[in-house]
Amino acid sequence: MSLTLHGIGVSKGIAIGKVHIINRDHIEVGEYTLSVQSLEEEVSRFEGAVDVAREQLQKIRQYVSKHTATDVAAFIDTHLLMLEDAVFIESPIRLIRERQCNAEWALKLHHDYLIQVFDEMDDPYLKSRKDDVAQVINRIQRVLRGYPDLAEDLSTESLAQAIVLSDDLSPADTALMQHRGVVAFATESGGTTSHTAILARSLGIPAIVGLRRARAYIQHGETLIIDGIHGMLIADPDERALRYYRNRQRDEKRYRASLGKLKNAPTMTKDGTPILLQANIEFPEDMTAVRRVGGEGVGLYRTEFLYMNRPTPPTEEEHFDAYLRVLQAAKSAPVTIRTLDLGADKQVRYQEISTATNPALGLRAIRLCLKDLKMFKTQLRAIIRASAFGQVRMMIPMISGIQELLQVRGLVNEVQNELAHKAVRFDQAMQIGAMVEVPAVAACIDLYAPYSDFFSIGTNDLIQYTLAIDRVDDSVNYLYDPLHPAVLRLIKMSIDAAHKSERSISMCGEMASDSRYVRLLLGLGLRSFSVNPESLLEIKQIIINSDMTGLSRSANKLLRLTAHVDIVELLEYINR
Amino acid sequence: MSLTLHGIGVSKGIAIGKVHIINRDHIEVGEYTLSVQSLEEEVSRFEGAVDVAREQLQKIRQYVSKHTATDVAAFIDTHLLMLEDAVFIESPIRLIRERQCNAEWALKLHHDYLIQVFDEMDDPYLKSRKDDVAQVINRIQRVLRGYPDLAEDLSTESLAQAIVLSDDLSPADTALMQHRGVVAFATESGGTTSHTAILARSLGIPAIVGLRRARAYIQHGETLIIDGIHGMLIADPDERALRYYRNRQRDEKRYRASLGKLKNAPTMTKDGTPILLQANIEFPEDMTAVRRVGGEGVGLYRTEFLYMNRPTPPTEEEHFDAYLRVLQAAKSAPVTIRTLDLGADKQVRYQEISTATNPALGLRAIRLCLKDLKMFKTQLRAIIRASAFGQVRMMIPMISGIQELLQVRGLVNEVQNELAHKAVRFDQAMQIGAMVEVPAVAACIDLYAPYSDFFSIGTNDLIQYTLAIDRVDDSVNYLYDPLHPAVLRLIKMSIDAAHKSERSISMCGEMASDSRYVRLLLGLGLRSFSVNPESLLEIKQIIINSDMTGLSRSANKLLRLTAHVDIVELLEYINR
Repeated sequence: MSLTLHGIGVSKGIAIGKVHIINRDHIEVGEYTLSVQSLEEEVSRFEGAVDVAREQLQKIRQYVSKHTATDVAAFIDTHLLMLEDAVFIESPIRLIRERQCNAEWALKLHHDYLIQVFDEMDDPYLKSRKDDVAQVINRIQRVLRGYPDLAEDLSTESLAQAIVLSDDLSPADTALMQHRGVVAFATESGGTTSHTAILARSLGIPAIVGLRRARAYIQHGETLIIDGIHGMLIADPDERALRYYRNRQRDEKRYRASLGKLKNAPTMTKDGTPILLQANIEFPEDMTAVRRVGGEGVGLYRTEFLYMNRPTPPTEEEHFDAYLRVLQAAKSAPVTIRTLDLGADKQVRYQEISTATNPALGLRAIRLCLKDLKMFKTQLRAIIRASAFGQVRMMIPMISGIQELLQVRGLVNEVQNELAHKAVRFDQAMQIGAMVEVPAVAACIDLYAPYSDFFSIGTNDLIQYTLAIDRVDDSVNYLYDPLHPAVLRLIKMSIDAAHKSERSISMCGEMASDSRYVRLLLGLGLRSFSVNPESLLEIKQIIINSDMTGLSRSANKLLRLTAHVDIVELLEYINR
Repeated sequence: MSLTLHGIGVSKGIAIGKVHIINRDHIEVGEYTLSVQSLEEEVSRFEGAVDVAREQLQKIRQYVSKHTATDVAAFIDTHLLMLEDAVFIESPIRLIRERQCNAEWALKLHHDYLIQVFDEMDDPYLKSRKDDVAQVINRIQRVLRGYPDLAEDLSTESLAQAIVLSDDLSPADTALMQHRGVVAFATESGGTTSHTAILARSLGIPAIVGLRRARAYIQHGETLIIDGIHGMLIADPDERALRYYRNRQRDEKRYRASLGKLKNAPTMTKDGTPILLQANIEFPEDMTAVRRVGGEGVGLYRTEFLYMNRPTPPTEEEHFDAYLRVLQAAKSAPVTIRTLDLGADKQVRYQEISTATNPALGLRAIRLCLKDLKMFKTQLRAIIRASAFGQVRMMIPMISGIQELLQVRGLVNEVQNELAHKAVRFDQAMQIGAMVEVPAVAACIDLYAPYSDFFSIGTNDLIQYTLAIDRVDDSVNYLYDPLHPAVLRLIKMSIDAAHKSERSISMCGEMASDSRYVRLLLGLGLRSFSVNPESLLEIKQIIINSDMTGLSRSANKLLRLTAHVDIVELLEYINR
């Protein structure tokens, strides 16, 4: 009998195949009290297990660098870094000695502590990074238990045409699977920013996460249909469903093939209006996908990942290396590096937890950077040094006051002078721009323009503040609405004022990557989009098929509608 | 030798007098384990103490109703209600039985729990209400210890010309003191919304709160100067300081006397532009102060106090009685009742705590009311019934979507129909208006106007969301700025759009009560202010002395300035 389960679709597409179930469950451990004499022996046992775990990962890492694209290597490196991090290893050792307990228990306590720290974080992105911690600790626990490396299991079984279902997938798991014919991923845990999600998107195969308790209802080897658009899993489908989804799969393949042909086409509306279409990236590895779809540079390079899963901020060289890799991949196309955009400083370190009552209205992004100048200047130096090797633009998140922009420009000057003294090369004319995500900026673009070489609209936060809605708060997110006339008016106001001030203005928020809004945004005057690589060609196709005639009039009409049904109807008309 | 201490000035004015120190400190208690047989005896002892505490308060309550205005009675009633609340009393009794401990300890545990609950609340107003809990519990602890009622002490000593300094003052303390010649209050704890602050303002005498550890440095009977404007206390001042402050006191008295003469003057600028000047109130008792200063009705009646310090929401009759008292005091002047504006439902009850990551962007005010329709309709019924007895206007806080306004109007219709069926009278034409405090509304007044009979700008929240700054967050409140050009533009946009849509628009936020901004707001087109009663005459004087000629041009100039120094300079010019 067929069964349908719903999760979160994190990578588009339809897959049909036999399920391969992987169990990487949490390992139950108990506490044992040890004699004082045997404590050092237990510490050695723990250190030995860490060594084995490290060797396992290094082996996988080698395999990956030989056999696969670099997409996954960075994730495995992150895990290796954790295993090499003194703080990460020392805490369990201290616990063994202080509590006189077994290594498993010490590790479990440390795990629980770290998970709690992550759970209390406010940023959903950071929250999802706790998977890394859990996966590394799970690997050590398995070694302590004497379990074989899951990766070895995997490498002996055939995964051709398989749909992998697991509680959770580590980067190492995914690395070993990715080129062995897996057609889709499904996991019980995870969110839209989990590794599984990121990797599935970069591989271009469908994935669903958050399928709670799915393994309890699905049998190894069963046939599954995965609908990555709707986040739907169908187990043991009947003939009719299979026929339907095979057809959809074929249509989709055809559609993708037709999109593929657009890669080198100029981005231009039917009537010849040129549009700039750039990509959003998070890792240097994402440039593979950007080149695959022919993106005209990077409109948003998020740098938060550099700060993750480590006890101290990244060094200038680590920043610089990452930027250089992106610039090299981008050739001479512009790369817009956004400076650190985190919720609060406490969230990049394990020790402290943010105590702000309203972190979204608190010390985040540029506010945080201007408080921690040492950390900020490290990033600035790396960005400015990188500017000698390509077309770098620097973008500042969460600007609310003009003073902040002036401070940043002052710091950039200072760093540039320091580097000039040391005869280090950099681009004197590097552009510095502000994100438009605080309503204050949208209302005053003309005043910010003298100090901002370009603007980029971040829709998620702009909507959040304009409507006073936390969109990750389940009790109010029904009010979160990109089509609220106030949101559209602020967007239009920003675009008009930027153009009047002779500044380029782009949109890099989620709204730009959503195919439903492309024509509306063109109608509101937007001429520059920065979108997720996996959406880029679809957006391009919409642009190419759009005629600007009448679009502006229809879009402006939308600014005066209030009833949801009228808004939806007009949007449908615009998209027809 | 003289000593200067700084606290928070919560009620303006200068006072000079001898200090009367009151110690109402926290009582240290220990835990004792009792035999099972003696537990019921301990429960009786506890109940007896509660009875005595209640009798003490009832005595004070009687004294108050005979001797003083009603200002304080409501606070004492709140404390009496707590002592009559079964839940409040039952928890310590359960603790005595379960832990087999002494009554003092059980009461202390309950106290600590409640204080923790209050501390975790997000709303600074509610947070400060924890004083009530502490004061009631302190009273019971004193009875258990066999200490005499502090009130009896007080009533035997002379307080004429005294400045009372205490760790904290309960409403009962204040009630007994208020008409006995006290010239100022100073407390170690408390914030701007503590009872001491509210009562001092209503009595019109200076007060400072938050003078941490002041009693350790000041001797009973010393001469003190209290500067309620700057929150400054000077102990043992020298001749020069005394001369200076006596002069300032005299000037101030003269100024107040001259303000007093304006009470019945029409509110009109020099050039004859009529301005509506109403008052903000929180308690029916505040109407005394409103009448004293000649306010033209109530522009904002906050109804949150009705929901405080009680395990269940207020009944319809409790709402109705409060509204009726205000309407009777207002005579035929309009009274604008704002529906419940709380941070989250959890915050009015002791049991649960809000878990929202960003409560300021969460389920608050009208969002909360539209989720808890039973509670909301109770208030709506009371407001609609009250509309038969005066000029009631109903104001909705935190409107972000037009849908919310339509829902409220639907509910009002529903309640009106129900009441009509029962032949209950009400005002068919009662006006319903939206607060302008979410940026979305400021950007779309024209779209909201068909469904909103009037508008009122709430500046605190509008500034908070426009700048994405939580102003109670110490790490970012340096960015909170009423003069940010974006804030001024949104205010102007709202005023212009409201007038164009033929809707009245007022401002009831803190900015309206701040004398520095009056002329600027007049220049931006504001013609209706609702201000704190204690600021009303000062605001009136500024209006009467203002000439609209040129004001609009200067104000609009401010919308295009970015440097803080330029803004301040132009504001000074406007105020000259």
